[in-house]
Amino acid sequence: MGEIQARMEAALARLLPNAQVAPARLHEAMRYAVLEGGKRVRPLLVFAAGEVTQARSERLELAAAAVEVIHAYSLVHDDLPCMDDDVLRRGKPTVHVEYDEPTALLVGDALQTLAFQLLAEHRASEDAATQLEMVRLLAVAAGSRGMAGGQQIDLESTGKTLTLAELEFMHIHKTGALIRAAVLLGAACGKPLAEAERAKLDRYAKALGLAFQVVDDLLDAEASTATLGKTAGKDSKQGKSTYVAVLGAHRTRELARELGAEAHAALDGLGPRAARLSSLADFVVLRKF
Amino acid sequence: MGEIQARMEAALARLLPNAQVAPARLHEAMRYAVLEGGKRVRPLLVFAAGEVTQARSERLELAAAAVEVIHAYSLVHDDLPCMDDDVLRRGKPTVHVEYDEPTALLVGDALQTLAFQLLAEHRASEDAATQLEMVRLLAVAAGSRGMAGGQQIDLESTGKTLTLAELEFMHIHKTGALIRAAVLLGAACGKPLAEAERAKLDRYAKALGLAFQVVDDLLDAEASTATLGKTAGKDSKQGKSTYVAVLGAHRTRELARELGAEAHAALDGLGPRAARLSSLADFVVLRKF
Repeated sequence: MGEIQARMEAALARLLPNAQVAPARLHEAMRYAVLEGGKRVRPLLVFAAGEVTQARSERLELAAAAVEVIHAYSLVHDDLPCMDDDVLRRGKPTVHVEYDEPTALLVGDALQTLAFQLLAEHRASEDAATQLEMVRLLAVAAGSRGMAGGQQIDLESTGKTLTLAELEFMHIHKTGALIRAAVLLGAACGKPLAEAERAKLDRYAKALGLAFQVVDDLLDAEASTATLGKTAGKDSKQGKSTYVAVLGAHRTRELARELGAEAHAALDGLGPRAARLSSLADFVVLRKF
Repeated sequence: MGEIQARMEAALARLLPNAQVAPARLHEAMRYAVLEGGKRVRPLLVFAAGEVTQARSERLELAAAAVEVIHAYSLVHDDLPCMDDDVLRRGKPTVHVEYDEPTALLVGDALQTLAFQLLAEHRASEDAATQLEMVRLLAVAAGSRGMAGGQQIDLESTGKTLTLAELEFMHIHKTGALIRAAVLLGAACGKPLAEAERAKLDRYAKALGLAFQVVDDLLDAEASTATLGKTAGKDSKQGKSTYVAVLGAHRTRELARELGAEAHAALDGLGPRAARLSSLADFVVLRKF
C-alpha cells in the first residue's frame, strides 16, 4: 500500500501543472491542494480494482490521478467560507487560508477541468471508446446526480434531523459516487469485465462507499483534530446529521462492520485477483477505532 | 442566427438536468444559470465553424451546448462575492442572489462537470478518438492554462495598470481560449480538416476572441446597465485595466475594426462554406457602437 501511495505522489507531481508556468500562483496552489495529502483511498481503490482486470500500472496511475484530482477539488470548494468555512485540512491550512478565497475558487475549478483533461489526453485504456466511457463515468459520479448533488443535499439537510434512509441517500451521492467511480475506472483500465463481475464490483463499491462515510462519522465524533488532520467534531457543531447522531456510537460501529462484511461478500467468486480489494475493505472499516 | 439561437435554447433545455429530479433546487438553479440568457455567441461560432466541415446539426448542438455550459459556469463563479461580487447578469439577478452562495458555487461546479458529460455521453463526431480530442480541446481551453488561468491573471492584475501586451495575454486566456475552442469544436463535428484549413480557423478564432473582448470593454465603458443586462462600468470601478483605459476610446474602436479585418482575412480561401463565420465577425465587431 505504501508503495502505491508513493507511486501516486510521484504521478500526481508529474501530472499537475508545473508551478513555474504562468499563472504560477494558481499552479502552485493547485499543487498545494493535491500533493502530500491524505491516505489516497480512491487511488488505492483504482489500483486494487485494476488487479481484477490485470490492468497495467501506468494506466492505473492516470485513472487514479483523475479521481484524486476530482476529490481534491471537492475538498477545496467544501472548505470555502460559504460552505464549511474550515481552516485545516490534512494537517495544513486550507487553500483559501494559505492563499486567498478567489484563488481557492479557481483552484477547485481548474482541478476539476484537469481531471477530464488527464483522461482525454493520455491513454488509460485499450481504445478510445473505453476511454470516453471513463470520462462519462467520472462526470456522472462528480456531477449534479453524484458528488455535487450530494453536497447540495447536505446543504439543504443542515439543521434538520435526517432519517437513516435520508442520510444514506445523501452519502451515496456525496462520497459513494466517487468511490464507486474509482472502482469502476480502475477495472476499466484492464481487460473487459463480464456483466456479472462488474455487478460484483459495483456491489462492493456501494458497500465500501457507505462504510467509508460511517467510519468517517465515528472518527469525526471520537478522534482529535490532531489525529484527523482536519477539524474534529465539526459535523455536529454545524448541525449536520451523522450516523453517530442518528444511531449512537455502538450501533454505528456495528453498521460499519456489517458494511465491511457486505463488501467482502460482494467479492465472492472473483478469486485471488480481488485480494487487494478485500484488504482495502478492512483498511477502510478498521482504521483507527 | 435567430433560428440557431432558438434551436440552442431548445437543445440546452433538453440537455440540462430536469428541475423535478433530485436535488431539485440545484437542478433548477443550473437551468436558471443557463437558459434564456445571452446572445449565445459561442454556440453561433460552433454552428458557423461546422458549416466549414459540413457537420450535422444534431452534433453541432451538442458541442455548442458543452461550450455554452462551460461559459455559463464561469459566469456564475465570476459573479460570486469573492470574485466580482455582481448582482445582475443577463438582465436577471445573479445565481447567488436569486438562490444563495453555496448553491451558486455548486451550480458552477456541476455545470462544468455537465459539459464534459455531454461530450462523453452523446456522439458529436465521427468516431470515439475525435470525440476524445473534443473533450481534450474543451478541457485545455477551460483549465489553468486557458479560461481559469485567465481569471487568475485578471485577479492578480486588479489595481495595476497593464501594458497592451499584458492585457492581450490576459484576454487570450480569459475569453480567447473558449472562443477558439468553440470554433475548433464546431469544425471537429464534421469532415476532417486539412492542416492549412485548421490554421486559418485558428487565426480567425484568435482575432475574433480578442475583438470580442475589445468590444466588450467599449460597451462596458459606454453603454448603460439596462442595455447590457449586466452592471456597466464595473471594470474601471474595480480597478481593472481595459482597452479603453490603456488606448482611449478612439484607438480602441480602431483596434476592434483591425481585429475584425484580421478575422475576415484569415478566412481567405475557405470559400462560401465560411460565409457564416464571416458574418459572425461583423456581428461581434459591429454590435451596438
